[in-house]
Amino acid sequence: MFRLHKAPLVSLLQVMACSCMVFGQVHRDERPVIGAEIFIEPGQTRAEIDGWFRTLKESGMPLTRIRMFERYMKDSAGNWDFQLFDWAFESGERHGIKIYGNLFPDTPFDDVGGFKFPRTDQHLAEIADYIERTVTHFRRYRSLYGWVPVNEPGVGGKLDQHPFTERRFSEWKATHQPATYDANGFEHFDFAQEKFLLHHNSWFLGWLTNEIHRHDPGRPVHVNNHDLFRNVAEYDFPAWREFLTSLGGSAHASWHFGYFKPSQYALAVDANSEIIRSGAGTIPWLMTELQGGNNTYSGYDPLCPTPEEIAQWLWVTTAGESKGSIFWCLNPRLSGIEAGEWALLDFQDRPTDRMRSASAVAKAIDDHGDFFAKARVLESGVNLLYIRESMWVEKKLLNGIQDDHNVARQPGAGMKSLLAYHEALMQGGMQSNIQEIGEFDFSKANYKGSVVILPHQIAIPGRYRQSIKDFVNKGGQLIVDGLTGFYDENAITVMRDFPFADVFGGEIKEFRFRKESFRYGMHQQADSLDATGWMGLILPGPAAQTIASEGDGILGVKTAFGTGEVIWIPTLLGLGARIADDLKPLGLFLENTVKIPETSVRFAGHHPGMLLKTMQNGNDLGTVLVNKGTSVTQVRLEGLDKERKGKVIFKNKGGKVDGSWISVDPEETIVVLWQ
Amino acid sequence: MFRLHKAPLVSLLQVMACSCMVFGQVHRDERPVIGAEIFIEPGQTRAEIDGWFRTLKESGMPLTRIRMFERYMKDSAGNWDFQLFDWAFESGERHGIKIYGNLFPDTPFDDVGGFKFPRTDQHLAEIADYIERTVTHFRRYRSLYGWVPVNEPGVGGKLDQHPFTERRFSEWKATHQPATYDANGFEHFDFAQEKFLLHHNSWFLGWLTNEIHRHDPGRPVHVNNHDLFRNVAEYDFPAWREFLTSLGGSAHASWHFGYFKPSQYALAVDANSEIIRSGAGTIPWLMTELQGGNNTYSGYDPLCPTPEEIAQWLWVTTAGESKGSIFWCLNPRLSGIEAGEWALLDFQDRPTDRMRSASAVAKAIDDHGDFFAKARVLESGVNLLYIRESMWVEKKLLNGIQDDHNVARQPGAGMKSLLAYHEALMQGGMQSNIQEIGEFDFSKANYKGSVVILPHQIAIPGRYRQSIKDFVNKGGQLIVDGLTGFYDENAITVMRDFPFADVFGGEIKEFRFRKESFRYGMHQQADSLDATGWMGLILPGPAAQTIASEGDGILGVKTAFGTGEVIWIPTLLGLGARIADDLKPLGLFLENTVKIPETSVRFAGHHPGMLLKTMQNGNDLGTVLVNKGTSVTQVRLEGLDKERKGKVIFKNKGGKVDGSWISVDPEETIVVLWQ
Amino acid sequence: MFRLHKAPLVSLLQVMACSCMVFGQVHRDERPVIGAEIFIEPGQTRAEIDGWFRTLKESGMPLTRIRMFERYMKDSAGNWDFQLFDWAFESGERHGIKIYGNLFPDTPFDDVGGFKFPRTDQHLAEIADYIERTVTHFRRYRSLYGWVPVNEPGVGGKLDQHPFTERRFSEWKATHQPATYDANGFEHFDFAQEKFLLHHNSWFLGWLTNEIHRHDPGRPVHVNNHDLFRNVAEYDFPAWREFLTSLGGSAHASWHFGYFKPSQYALAVDANSEIIRSGAGTIPWLMTELQGGNNTYSGYDPLCPTPEEIAQWLWVTTAGESKGSIFWCLNPRLSGIEAGEWALLDFQDRPTDRMRSASAVAKAIDDHGDFFAKARVLESGVNLLYIRESMWVEKKLLNGIQDDHNVARQPGAGMKSLLAYHEALMQGGMQSNIQEIGEFDFSKANYKGSVVILPHQIAIPGRYRQSIKDFVNKGGQLIVDGLTGFYDENAITVMRDFPFADVFGGEIKEFRFRKESFRYGMHQQADSLDATGWMGLILPGPAAQTIASEGDGILGVKTAFGTGEVIWIPTLLGLGARIADDLKPLGLFLENTVKIPETSVRFAGHHPGMLLKTMQNGNDLGTVLVNKGTSVTQVRLEGLDKERKGKVIFKNKGGKVDGSWISVDPEETIVVLWQ
Repeated sequence: MFRLHKAPLVSLLQVMACSCMVFGQVHRDERPVIGAEIFIEPGQTRAEIDGWFRTLKESGMPLTRIRMFERYMKDSAGNWDFQLFDWAFESGERHGIKIYGNLFPDTPFDDVGGFKFPRTDQHLAEIADYIERTVTHFRRYRSLYGWVPVNEPGVGGKLDQHPFTERRFSEWKATHQPATYDANGFEHFDFAQEKFLLHHNSWFLGWLTNEIHRHDPGRPVHVNNHDLFRNVAEYDFPAWREFLTSLGGSAHASWHFGYFKPSQYALAVDANSEIIRSGAGTIPWLMTELQGGNNTYSGYDPLCPTPEEIAQWLWVTTAGESKGSIFWCLNPRLSGIEAGEWALLDFQDRPTDRMRSASAVAKAIDDHGDFFAKARVLESGVNLLYIRESMWVEKKLLNGIQDDHNVARQPGAGMKSLLAYHEALMQGGMQSNIQEIGEFDFSKANYKGSVVILPHQIAIPGRYRQSIKDFVNKGGQLIVDGLTGFYDENAITVMRDFPFADVFGGEIKEFRFRKESFRYGMHQQADSLDATGWMGLILPGPAAQTIASEGDGILGVKTAFGTGEVIWIPTLLGLGARIADDLKPLGLFLENTVKIPETSVRFAGHHPGMLLKTMQNGNDLGTVLVNKGTSVTQVRLEGLDKERKGKVIFKNKGGKVDGSWISVDPEETIVVLWQ
Repeated sequence: MFRLHKAPLVSLLQVMACSCMVFGQVHRDERPVIGAEIFIEPGQTRAEIDGWFRTLKESGMPLTRIRMFERYMKDSAGNWDFQLFDWAFESGERHGIKIYGNLFPDTPFDDVGGFKFPRTDQHLAEIADYIERTVTHFRRYRSLYGWVPVNEPGVGGKLDQHPFTERRFSEWKATHQPATYDANGFEHFDFAQEKFLLHHNSWFLGWLTNEIHRHDPGRPVHVNNHDLFRNVAEYDFPAWREFLTSLGGSAHASWHFGYFKPSQYALAVDANSEIIRSGAGTIPWLMTELQGGNNTYSGYDPLCPTPEEIAQWLWVTTAGESKGSIFWCLNPRLSGIEAGEWALLDFQDRPTDRMRSASAVAKAIDDHGDFFAKARVLESGVNLLYIRESMWVEKKLLNGIQDDHNVARQPGAGMKSLLAYHEALMQGGMQSNIQEIGEFDFSKANYKGSVVILPHQIAIPGRYRQSIKDFVNKGGQLIVDGLTGFYDENAITVMRDFPFADVFGGEIKEFRFRKESFRYGMHQQADSLDATGWMGLILPGPAAQTIASEGDGILGVKTAFGTGEVIWIPTLLGLGARIADDLKPLGLFLENTVKIPETSVRFAGHHPGMLLKTMQNGNDLGTVLVNKGTSVTQVRLEGLDKERKGKVIFKNKGGKVDGSWISVDPEETIVVLWQ
Repeated sequence: MFRLHKAPLVSLLQVMACSCMVFGQVHRDERPVIGAEIFIEPGQTRAEIDGWFRTLKESGMPLTRIRMFERYMKDSAGNWDFQLFDWAFESGERHGIKIYGNLFPDTPFDDVGGFKFPRTDQHLAEIADYIERTVTHFRRYRSLYGWVPVNEPGVGGKLDQHPFTERRFSEWKATHQPATYDANGFEHFDFAQEKFLLHHNSWFLGWLTNEIHRHDPGRPVHVNNHDLFRNVAEYDFPAWREFLTSLGGSAHASWHFGYFKPSQYALAVDANSEIIRSGAGTIPWLMTELQGGNNTYSGYDPLCPTPEEIAQWLWVTTAGESKGSIFWCLNPRLSGIEAGEWALLDFQDRPTDRMRSASAVAKAIDDHGDFFAKARVLESGVNLLYIRESMWVEKKLLNGIQDDHNVARQPGAGMKSLLAYHEALMQGGMQSNIQEIGEFDFSKANYKGSVVILPHQIAIPGRYRQSIKDFVNKGGQLIVDGLTGFYDENAITVMRDFPFADVFGGEIKEFRFRKESFRYGMHQQADSLDATGWMGLILPGPAAQTIASEGDGILGVKTAFGTGEVIWIPTLLGLGARIADDLKPLGLFLENTVKIPETSVRFAGHHPGMLLKTMQNGNDLGTVLVNKGTSVTQVRLEGLDKERKGKVIFKNKGGKVDGSWISVDPEETIVVLWQ
């Protein structure tokens, strides 16, 4: 599609040579850093700007990001004047702050997030010109760390109608060779728009990167996705790894956490982080935007984060291997949409309690930088997989119906099911990976100790059928929830000739929708589970062992397949638990079912509201605990060697460690290093 | 408008000669049959298709309907290939199944229900060509029963903007001679769109029928309306009788019963049936589509019917003289919108419990086919009339306002009022006819024993004024509820010069809207009734007897007129009862008020949740009872000759008959033959 | 913009010479009159029309208003026929009823309110022609009182897209010299649309007035705004005073009181009146439309007023110096939108209880006409100020987001905050003026005894900064609530360089949004207050005295400035109280805080649900009391000289006066003259 101006590694190192602190963006083994966006707009003075850089330095936050507004660099006569931004880059040099330049080609004053795609060929040329001008000018600064080619790609699944996009779509349709797909003669949707959008996003990011590198070869390039729980099906992260230095994201509670209650925001940050971590794969990632301050008129669901939330979010992302977090933003813009909002500083430019909280986290990370530099997530072996095509099919088949009553039918039902499993596991202290199915490594020889959960993923593309079977056959444990696999990638139902009959242990006789949420009784569990939407009736295969039933109807089976096993529950237990707002029965089921290694760190018992994340660096472990409940909670950690001593490296309330017992105050975050 | 290729009856009988079981579609005196649509789509095998036909046969369901997709008969080069559908018709012949061919001219893959009107003259010509090709080809099959010219006409009251419709509308306006209407000089709406839509629907159905009969003269033609409670004002059923062999409808709980709670669905099927029965008049009718199975993404209000509901719906339609019911559908389509949904068979092609339930009903009907063939509804003499123009005025005068708070003002208030009377009567076991006022026979010499209820029918066209007076004058009893008659057919209020002052027994002083629902005290009834919306204050005429009042305000009067009488309650008691979710006070009022014949079968007492429908064939009676309550209910039937013995010909729970006492289990349907 | 054909006063007096009763429209010192619109439409008879005029006369209601439909004066061939309206004007002369002719150029039959702006130049010329024809014809009648040039200007803030408006907008933008505004280099919104709409409204009204006076010089001209709580930011009342004889408004509960509960409608009428009174300034005002009768399909929130409400509304407007009220309408139109609705007469043309109630009020006013003619509001000195630009900024910055959860962010938050202060003061019997800030007189030398409240007025234009400081400096008391002053007129936040730091007594550190409503503890008050949305943290200045705090955070300060003082509460107490539906804590705070004169009449104690309005004429006082509670309430008035004797001049229940104690029945209005 385009030639990448790929720089050899030596050039990357040259670029980095000047930076004493901010290596993590290009090396996964460097320490995380915390920063905040400095919003630059005309009207600001050189002294103000310099003050913000100094404040960052004094706060131990050596990283910033700046929107490089073409609007404020070029006048209407076409003359360029970089002074405003030169001041910033000079201050960066003066105070040792590294800057991500966020390209922001000309767009109207009231465009909050910037456009996502060029509108015409002429527009594309103008963007290229802007990039040339801007990159050529600022590449001279030692404070320049890298480039963000576009702010928050992602368009809510909807293609724009501009000529450029329409022409590219036509061309794509003409030249796109459909993958080998056999519909057995059935007519079917082709999801061309969805596939093209996936392609178009990657193409444009690649094109932008190429334009940047044409003028500034080898410079780090970083992109922040956003609204991930809704937009993720339009991002092809593995493809982006080809040209990005690091992957990022915007995770703003007020814009992006509509699927969550406020008490779940830390969980949301964790889930968001895990999705990005998986998307990044072998390249580093960082949280490009975290909400720094108050909303007045922006945000769908306004808030002002508490200092405790700031600490929670930073530690949760750090525990998810983020190499940094950048707040949006340090200083408020004074005009336009978002005027006076989002800031970590108060109106007198003094650090708020949120800023002090961020700074304290930064210090703790820096004090134990060696640990965090090479620390990796200590996985439980549990993998929650979502499937891009499931999200596409959810929208397509609802066919424009607005169903306010049945969450099970609303787009997002699969993602919410996954989030329920994530939370239920977390209540047992079990950490789970969250991955698009295409990001999961199906190429291993042995999956003993590995668990895959497919939570109401309604469409499984045919290309994964063999992989899923292989996973189980080679010792993996597979848990299947809801209508998983009802459709193939083009929304053909495969229920009449079920390709997973052997591995899942049977076929579906039928699904039956129930208007009211209902109870699902697991034979081996005293308390029944909450279910919603459809109840699936199984026609069991010869190897299946019934684990749940109602009257004659078999509602769940367990089946050994190869050296692995499958738990198949074709009823929506994840979503049911989430709607009932009680994850405990699901959590107990998972604790009794999921086969995780003895050495996996987790809670002894079930603790709604508690978060636990564990990292490992060599022999050392680091645990982050957050208490989102309303009372002091004591938890005992399992999976820790008895010899280990816990050392508190961060806490912001009255938390204590006593052997493997940890006490955490409400809203507290406590970080313990185990050596 | 077009020349009908009317076939002489002899040709019809020739067509029918081949059918041993499915006569009811053309003769009202033949036995009902039950069937299910076989959905044909490419990808299916000949063996599969044949299997479905065989299953129908084995289940005692000799009737099917097939969508004759042009899309699957013609390739993009214009070549026709009928093979897929030939397989079906051949299987029909092989297994003795009769087929309704549902014409389905070319339309996009994701068009669930098909277009309703041609878009251009060219399009009309293409439709004609498709009809010629298709009809000419399939008329050869003995399995061809008849044609359905279009699926579910009815557009929610909204004219499309295609050139064809716009031109036809212009022509209609130019040539349409307005009926003699005297506005007394007042300017007024003309409801041209609504009238044209009525006309256009009939015209297109007639044109399609004509095209069919051009190539297949005399073949039965059937049409299924849909979403009747909302769409009925755009159907001119009496006009359709001119070219249809039988009338039908789609009555899907998930799409069409938004006015009802799930526990009212059997009532909804009954009301739907009664509307069609009246529309059919002297031609037979059948329920063209009943929901057979589960919803995933289709339907506004998804469900999977229970076997009990299947039996309830079938018996209720049968008791309403339906000559058959066809489920949508036997097998699920595998792709597109509705993939995997709606089916009576499971994914292994085995009958579900719903299918077995349908089969059991089919057997019971067949076992007593002589009774059902010529059985007619044993009417109570009560007629609930709705008025097309009332529905038009409801929408027009709200003028685009979205009023979520006041049901009384929402379009549908008149229909919901009618449904409340229907349900209140039903709770006393009293069956009511539901008719558009134009379908009611006002030409009789004597109306003793006949009751007409006008439930909040806000607009009474002038052409019915004399008829209504004559009805009362000749002995009829008229019950008038709500704002009935507030407007004439063009939304002029007639309250200042009230044309019904003599017969209703007074005039309205004024209506007063009350924000909260309120109580309405009937002098002769201990318990007050629920009311909503407006309270009407009557200025009584000399013959009026006050039956309800509040302070000085007279709220209800009874007036003798000729040999009949009028009960006038210009307050919304029907809608009030429905909103209060308590029909009993209204039911008691009706039981004490309505003058029905002694021989009318009904409950002794009031039984919320119970349905009773009675048929008569010669001296024999058949009663269908359904219990939608949650406990076993004993009812005693009144109106039965003491000599009669009850014989249970169908039941699906522990129901029992003991003299005139009948016990019915929750959700049970029990059918008793009284000889 | 246009030359005003200003008539000298003598000509005005000539016009008036013929009127014995209806002087108040041009002289503020004449007695108020009550009237009702007669709706004229073809189909009516001369006798009917005459009857309505006679009824007005017999009811003591000498004023009417008539829609002068061009549609009913001109046929499609362009021939004019005024007969229908001549009948009305002749009847007016016959019965001594004065008529406001409401110009209504040709518009479709279903256009309920008429268009607001010309669509093209051609359209403008047609309007001019219509005015010439109509005015030239009807100016001959002695019954002609004056003209209403357009019905209910005001378009919900949205410019139409017609060529005329677009061209005018372009021209305005080209020629409009922006006021001196210094953004300190910041880019900003310009609110050009909002400013142009303000201008365009005034321009068109002026143009219409000019056209009228071209043919009928010196004739009174009156305009009724509408939906004032939402539309007020698009009206420039002071500019209108230039060409209007009197100002008016439509205040219909069913269309315009969406911010209120039914029990608050009398309060709403009061607030609406106060806004118009302030807008009118030195010219008279009257309530052009009050709801006379029942709604069926019109109105967003239908109702039929009670006789008690009719009396409440009339007395409340009268107590606000209205020179009259005209009901919409006397007789119902019979056709079209609103057919059969809104009337004071019943369908037999007899007065309803509402009409009798209005008539009784008219009589009481007339019986004490000398008092009411020159009576003026006895102000408490409390001024609630709203700011046009705040309303603009509320809409602009929400940027299209639909936030159903947070009232604080919805457009109207400032107005609702103001209404809360109005109601809280009213519960203590304290009357408040409601003024656009530009209408407030900042030019006085001394503001002792004067209080200004700025309730969550988020944008304070720079041009008022010095005025506000001067007001306090000269002895005024200023109470500041919520985010008042967060932005300047172009939505730039001024929080970083707060221009009110000296006078407000500090700066804002930051605002913090709280998802849940919260309690706000005032140091000097036992009960805490309800708050919502943001909590503002103050960095106090040297003169500030803390009055509220939470932990370290200072939430409210009191500061002496010059000879005045400022109470600054940067938290939304008004809106919080309104959401909590409990105004009492706010009322108590105000009673303890607000410095009003001893002679101000008010309640001893706090009385939710009670309204008190007081007028003064020379030494006489008149108090209007309304009880909107559900039980008989005794109140004691403070501020009355002990010598005064109360004389009841109107009551419609069992109200009594005993010294300064007054007992009022639920829903009663009682009017007492104190001499």
